[in-house]
Amino acid sequence: MPFFEDIEIGARRDLGSFTFTAEAIKKFAAQFDPQRFHLDEEAGRNSLFGGLAASGWHVGSVCMKLLVADGQRQAKEAAARGEQVAIWGPSPGFRELRWLKPVLAGDTIHFFSEVESMRTSEKRPEWGILQGRHTGTNQRGELVYSVLATAFVPRRSTGS
Amino acid sequence: MPFFEDIEIGARRDLGSFTFTAEAIKKFAAQFDPQRFHLDEEAGRNSLFGGLAASGWHVGSVCMKLLVADGQRQAKEAAARGEQVAIWGPSPGFRELRWLKPVLAGDTIHFFSEVESMRTSEKRPEWGILQGRHTGTNQRGELVYSVLATAFVPRRSTGS
Repeated sequence: MPFFEDIEIGARRDLGSFTFTAEAIKKFAAQFDPQRFHLDEEAGRNSLFGGLAASGWHVGSVCMKLLVADGQRQAKEAAARGEQVAIWGPSPGFRELRWLKPVLAGDTIHFFSEVESMRTSEKRPEWGILQGRHTGTNQRGELVYSVLATAFVPRRSTGS
Repeated sequence: MPFFEDIEIGARRDLGSFTFTAEAIKKFAAQFDPQRFHLDEEAGRNSLFGGLAASGWHVGSVCMKLLVADGQRQAKEAAARGEQVAIWGPSPGFRELRWLKPVLAGDTIHFFSEVESMRTSEKRPEWGILQGRHTGTNQRGELVYSVLATAFVPRRSTGS
């Protein structure tokens, strides 16, 4: 992952896409969100969703999975170039978590992440605080998911 | 689940508690958030978390699981009393998703949900829109998780 100083506002990462199969939707729902419209095609069709719909927590978790995979890919590439790799810290929270349209069985969601703001931490000057908007768009180009995430990103040590 | 008319602002539901074992933390992380501090005890100890920490998406998903279980329990009890059971609609989104403190392996988190605001939908007058704060508190009484959720709750048909 890049250091704080190597990131620019507006930078956009393509996180790749994920197809929400009926099987994956039902598997997640059975574990964490066993509402009928997430478990059964007919119940989904008869709900406000209009079809078997992925749990919002499933959509958020898949976005997280792609974010982590992208970060690991970036770290590997940086290491291969002989660069120092920054270890990002945890996220203190997310804001404006929105499920704008249903994600139905068979939908392919393409996720992106874009840097919206950056500042240095007052309490911990060795860290920067980055806000990034993660979004998911379906195969019809409709925005289905959006969240504003905060992350701690290490700053380069002075002189390194 | 209750109808919109049967809910009061300030009403609080005890959703029960969940112990985040190291095994459960690693299993979720391997699927959805494979960052080292969610997968390995030593990496966790060396991170800002100070121990093997649950993914925030795991904490949110467990809260969802307990919410759904509580709703199903309420629906069953209402049905046993011969009452009509309301089928709640989907959530359009969550706000102020906060992971305030790490959830470490062995922590037991007690979840609650409290109604913060209620209004009827202008677009769909047969639905009410409820905002509820879901929270998680650890065995030391520290608030570790908080999110403001929006839900569509059906109103009783006139005359029913």
